[in-house]
Amino acid sequence: MVGHENSADGKRLVLEDAQLTLDNGSVLDTLTLAYRTYGTLNDDKSNAILICHALTGDHHPSGANPLTGRAGWWDNMVGPGKPVDTDRYFVICQNVIGGCAGSTGPSSQRADGTPYGLDFPVITIGDMVRAQNVLLDRLKIPDLFCVIGGSMGGMQVLQWAAAHGERVFSAIPIATAARHSSQNIAFHEVGRQAILADPDWHGGNYAAENTAPRKGLAVARMAAHITYLSEAALQRKFGRNLQDRDRLSYGFEADFQIESYLRHQGISFVDRFDANSYLYITRAMDYFDLAADFGGTLADAFANTKARFCVVSFTSDWLFPTSESISLVRALNAAGANVSFVEIESDKGHDAFLLDEPEMEQTIIGFLNAAAVARGLPLPEVSGAHND
Amino acid sequence: MVGHENSADGKRLVLEDAQLTLDNGSVLDTLTLAYRTYGTLNDDKSNAILICHALTGDHHPSGANPLTGRAGWWDNMVGPGKPVDTDRYFVICQNVIGGCAGSTGPSSQRADGTPYGLDFPVITIGDMVRAQNVLLDRLKIPDLFCVIGGSMGGMQVLQWAAAHGERVFSAIPIATAARHSSQNIAFHEVGRQAILADPDWHGGNYAAENTAPRKGLAVARMAAHITYLSEAALQRKFGRNLQDRDRLSYGFEADFQIESYLRHQGISFVDRFDANSYLYITRAMDYFDLAADFGGTLADAFANTKARFCVVSFTSDWLFPTSESISLVRALNAAGANVSFVEIESDKGHDAFLLDEPEMEQTIIGFLNAAAVARGLPLPEVSGAHND
Repeated sequence: MVGHENSADGKRLVLEDAQLTLDNGSVLDTLTLAYRTYGTLNDDKSNAILICHALTGDHHPSGANPLTGRAGWWDNMVGPGKPVDTDRYFVICQNVIGGCAGSTGPSSQRADGTPYGLDFPVITIGDMVRAQNVLLDRLKIPDLFCVIGGSMGGMQVLQWAAAHGERVFSAIPIATAARHSSQNIAFHEVGRQAILADPDWHGGNYAAENTAPRKGLAVARMAAHITYLSEAALQRKFGRNLQDRDRLSYGFEADFQIESYLRHQGISFVDRFDANSYLYITRAMDYFDLAADFGGTLADAFANTKARFCVVSFTSDWLFPTSESISLVRALNAAGANVSFVEIESDKGHDAFLLDEPEMEQTIIGFLNAAAVARGLPLPEVSGAHND
Repeated sequence: MVGHENSADGKRLVLEDAQLTLDNGSVLDTLTLAYRTYGTLNDDKSNAILICHALTGDHHPSGANPLTGRAGWWDNMVGPGKPVDTDRYFVICQNVIGGCAGSTGPSSQRADGTPYGLDFPVITIGDMVRAQNVLLDRLKIPDLFCVIGGSMGGMQVLQWAAAHGERVFSAIPIATAARHSSQNIAFHEVGRQAILADPDWHGGNYAAENTAPRKGLAVARMAAHITYLSEAALQRKFGRNLQDRDRLSYGFEADFQIESYLRHQGISFVDRFDANSYLYITRAMDYFDLAADFGGTLADAFANTKARFCVVSFTSDWLFPTSESISLVRALNAAGANVSFVEIESDKGHDAFLLDEPEMEQTIIGFLNAAAVARGLPLPEVSGAHND
């Protein structure tokens, strides 16, 4: 079976002779790409926006998400009349390869019916973007009006501009970096070691044992979740408030709301995410170092792109701090790129990019409208009061 | 057996009718306090300095540490002619109760010969300091010239000033806070859950099973260790340098130096620390909230102390950031205390208090000399060049 099919949780492109060569040298022949589209491609094929998701995201940024039973992960940002306006743009989102929401990953079955497990090749951000290029080719879309994403999604945005710059008219990397920092590798390694320490991981073959490393994955998620928030947000939301009690228990129950919240984050995560995918995707992020791919000079990564960039960071994001965005903006300027940069005041930490941040939304509306004019796309009709 | 004894790893005060009432209401009768002293108590008994250790410390701040085979954890700070000068002061350091370096804790044996395990009462910073008061009583030392410590040691310093202010002439809380923040509770909870997730934990009864939750404790230590360093220090020391290889492995080995370093930190920690002690001591830190103990107003905690304070923080410490020290200094000022405050420029993160930081050393030398003058203690003889 080759071609596009519709499924309950979006569309799938199934290729049995994909010949996708990966950075590690291996080739993926059988390739399934789970994706979802919103809106209508115009006759010029000039209004496509690709949304790139983050570590634990999927191809359902907007509308009901059949995988979680809740709204999509960027529902405030994407939809009719929203900043990424599906009334005006043809919006595509694809589950990354290595993931567990439908695209080929370590939990996918091989020809012999067994899941890859750790036989799945270690993939990179570059490989994820290659697979997105495959989808674009099959959709017969020559180039993207815009590619946008936060965190690991932002890494993909930068990879698009660097490796496939001729297909990118504009790019919005949010709360991201051109390379994963030592501290961020360290936090990922803690999460991986928590998974590997779980005897239910079984060397990655837990599916064959009809189990999963639930406790290890929950600990990994708990550690990671702290890094997505800011100290100020934790203090504001939870402080030292007690959970369902009026005094300390003098025990190891979840006395504090923050403990209860974290435990819930860990437990609910394992119901929706595959432990091996967590290993592979964190590894892909750790490996990301765009300057290293271009001889050590980040500006050289952007030498061949004509894309216009809008770089966004948040003041309280300590996982991908503003300093990383500034390094990126400097490199883009050195490459002569058209770049605007906004640091948004927020106490919500890294997660701010997923939340209702009016300044981020206004920034993206303004940037997309300017890019639309440059691209010759129609602007939305202005209603209401006007000057005579 | 009751009284002081010498052992290979310091001194022990063994009490069989200690009657130590804890904050949770239970009473510890049998009590062993492992401690070490340096220098000589003067005739006035006015030159005693108590050093309080941090989460994973012990009673060997200076000289050879028989537990680790290395130098004591504060060897740069404590010793003859050093800032805490054992030629001038009688220096005491006691392993905290709940610990695993000799003082009574969850791994201690009960009367029936079995270890406490989770039957050990949950202790607090207040309980640790009560046990230090027991030692001081038995040593017949009426009060302390100074009490000094960093991190959890600093919490004990503050607890001394608040609950036993009449016994404290001066106090040096370093890289600490008057309450454990929501974010810090969160990181501790991740570590505890990593231990509890390890099947070798056996509900805390791992000694009976002749095993230990080594993997869980290693993951806990890895997560904690990241919080002791700064992003800048990690970038400077490790960056994205590869470990013993010249290219990425496309696997899950420790490709990066930071991964190898963290794994080593985790593995070596489990050889010297007890997992249940880790649960109990992190809990004691989480419970610490000095203002809550005094009706919600931190200044009231210091209403009855005449101690002079020297508060020290480090610019890159994000675990106990300078803002916590400033809150403390404000409360001390509101209580009319004599307080000086120094924020030291360092990129070494929270761990800076354990490292060779000349400005910290000079600050402590100056503060102790001024306190010595106020206390009527002799100053060291000045040698070398002098003005005519």
